[in-house]
Amino acid sequence: MKTTIYDVAREAGVSIATVSQVINGKGKISEERRQEIMQIMERLSYQPSVIASALTGKKTYTLGLLIPDISNPFFAEVARSVEDQGNQHGYSLIICSTDNKDERVERYLSLLQQKSVDGIIIGTGVENKEILNPLMESSIPTILIARDMAGLDLQTVLVDDFAGGTMAAQHLLELGHQALAVLAEDPKVSSSRERIRGFKETLVGSGIDLPGHWVQTCKDDLVKEGKLKAKALLQQTQRPTALFCCNDLLAIGALQAAKELGVKVPRDLSIVGFDNTILATVTDPPLTSVSQPTESMGKLAVDLIIEQLKTKVGSTPRRVLSPELCIRGSSAKPQQG
Amino acid sequence: MKTTIYDVAREAGVSIATVSQVINGKGKISEERRQEIMQIMERLSYQPSVIASALTGKKTYTLGLLIPDISNPFFAEVARSVEDQGNQHGYSLIICSTDNKDERVERYLSLLQQKSVDGIIIGTGVENKEILNPLMESSIPTILIARDMAGLDLQTVLVDDFAGGTMAAQHLLELGHQALAVLAEDPKVSSSRERIRGFKETLVGSGIDLPGHWVQTCKDDLVKEGKLKAKALLQQTQRPTALFCCNDLLAIGALQAAKELGVKVPRDLSIVGFDNTILATVTDPPLTSVSQPTESMGKLAVDLIIEQLKTKVGSTPRRVLSPELCIRGSSAKPQQG
Repeated sequence: MKTTIYDVAREAGVSIATVSQVINGKGKISEERRQEIMQIMERLSYQPSVIASALTGKKTYTLGLLIPDISNPFFAEVARSVEDQGNQHGYSLIICSTDNKDERVERYLSLLQQKSVDGIIIGTGVENKEILNPLMESSIPTILIARDMAGLDLQTVLVDDFAGGTMAAQHLLELGHQALAVLAEDPKVSSSRERIRGFKETLVGSGIDLPGHWVQTCKDDLVKEGKLKAKALLQQTQRPTALFCCNDLLAIGALQAAKELGVKVPRDLSIVGFDNTILATVTDPPLTSVSQPTESMGKLAVDLIIEQLKTKVGSTPRRVLSPELCIRGSSAKPQQG
Repeated sequence: MKTTIYDVAREAGVSIATVSQVINGKGKISEERRQEIMQIMERLSYQPSVIASALTGKKTYTLGLLIPDISNPFFAEVARSVEDQGNQHGYSLIICSTDNKDERVERYLSLLQQKSVDGIIIGTGVENKEILNPLMESSIPTILIARDMAGLDLQTVLVDDFAGGTMAAQHLLELGHQALAVLAEDPKVSSSRERIRGFKETLVGSGIDLPGHWVQTCKDDLVKEGKLKAKALLQQTQRPTALFCCNDLLAIGALQAAKELGVKVPRDLSIVGFDNTILATVTDPPLTSVSQPTESMGKLAVDLIIEQLKTKVGSTPRRVLSPELCIRGSSAKPQQG
């Protein structure tokens, strides 16, 4: 059995409040009595734990990170960056994969509050914002990462998704594409919506239409869904020559669809992904992808939490970092005729 | 400010021990007084937290997972599986990326103990086993996953790495390869050692030698190191026709090296990876890889922790699951002449 503060109190014949005072070096206790209690703690191998100090309202040195899926390489990279920066400051990280499902978000948030985490970083989509109310009413510093939620008073660290979508469109337009389609994520994912908005506005600005049925939404298993939806797009008589995918997983699905249908990439079809994960460098051909500064984003999110813990107020409400287009082998001029 | 048990005690004019008794429904307190204290808790929005019950020696419903790197897709998949199975039972998961560095392992283990986690799952290599002593002396249920450590009394869930190495060797021998080399991980990683042992013994059993300098060790950035070491192997006058890589990241490095040197895979070089992560399905060509049953392993590790928490003893010391070879485009008959 693990030794608790109660065991120490019982052994010393004092209240747990007294033991707590000894641990925290407070209270009016004679030096002799203090020494005695400390010897009992040592004898019982009692470690004044983070838990004990958390009970007195002190910090738990724990952060919670909500993301759609830790096995999605983009979020694994975000998590690693948050973990490392947290670790620099003595914080550890609880991982919460939500699958973008509100009931999982709700459950995890309640759990993290019960655990008295010092801060929460949310990088997941939420459909019904009301489920965030208990968190908003609490005093737990909260940061949004790689996600935007209008109407919530939360500090946000994200990449300029609109600009990212614009970059993808400009690149494909410069190559000469005129028939462009999109693989989108669930519409409740704000980053995906913004990417498409940037993509579409750039097309429209160049007098090119993006028909509604050429924006295909994919949920859940993104590689599988991406493949399915890309196949449907590529099997039409009039088919797109370029495909903008709102993340690399969807782009991989599209690459697989093209391969199965004998559509050559980039000769017959250009594909542009988003996130520039490790996956983009290993596909066949390597994937042109819009890069997010994952490391800076994770670092900044932790720094903002720590700032909030110190000052009780957040400074800048939004920190928008710039994306970058990494051009690789999956995009090229459309084939003539 | 978050309401603490101290605020409730002050407001009610009682000790925190009394408040704790009310929370836990224990102690000799009049029903009237109990009701009064509960109303104060409600008025102050005090939530009797997991933290409060942890102090009394109860569970924190938190598990710790030590892995080399959460941004390595294999470990991200393990983490997701552990997270999901833990979540089923109400546990949340603290992620600890160790980079296989003893000082990080030591620091994280001490942190997890301070946080009174209910169980620890270790999937990271350790050089100096003495750093595990404080953990071994504690009563925290601990499971090794995807790793083996001889001489430690710890329940272990792993894949049969020796058999996995054997499978890779048999596959390449059956294809007709006679000049085979290996990209290994840090020798302190037991799984890598076992894979190589299985690989080598199968070669030797067929009368084929595995020269010492054809086993190249890679540390830290595995893709980069894998590429570097594969290049060195491929630039020799007498070069291998097949390369067994102890994980998919190393195999990706090898694929990149081959591409840069104009060595065609699989025509001039067969490559076999290990872990069968999402990466194996997206490379060019797709990677033949030995598959680990990641989902079952994560699930089993959590189940064993829960069993230990209930029964205070672990049942079977080792659970060895079977690997499977997934043959894809990166392995073929060696070119004649």
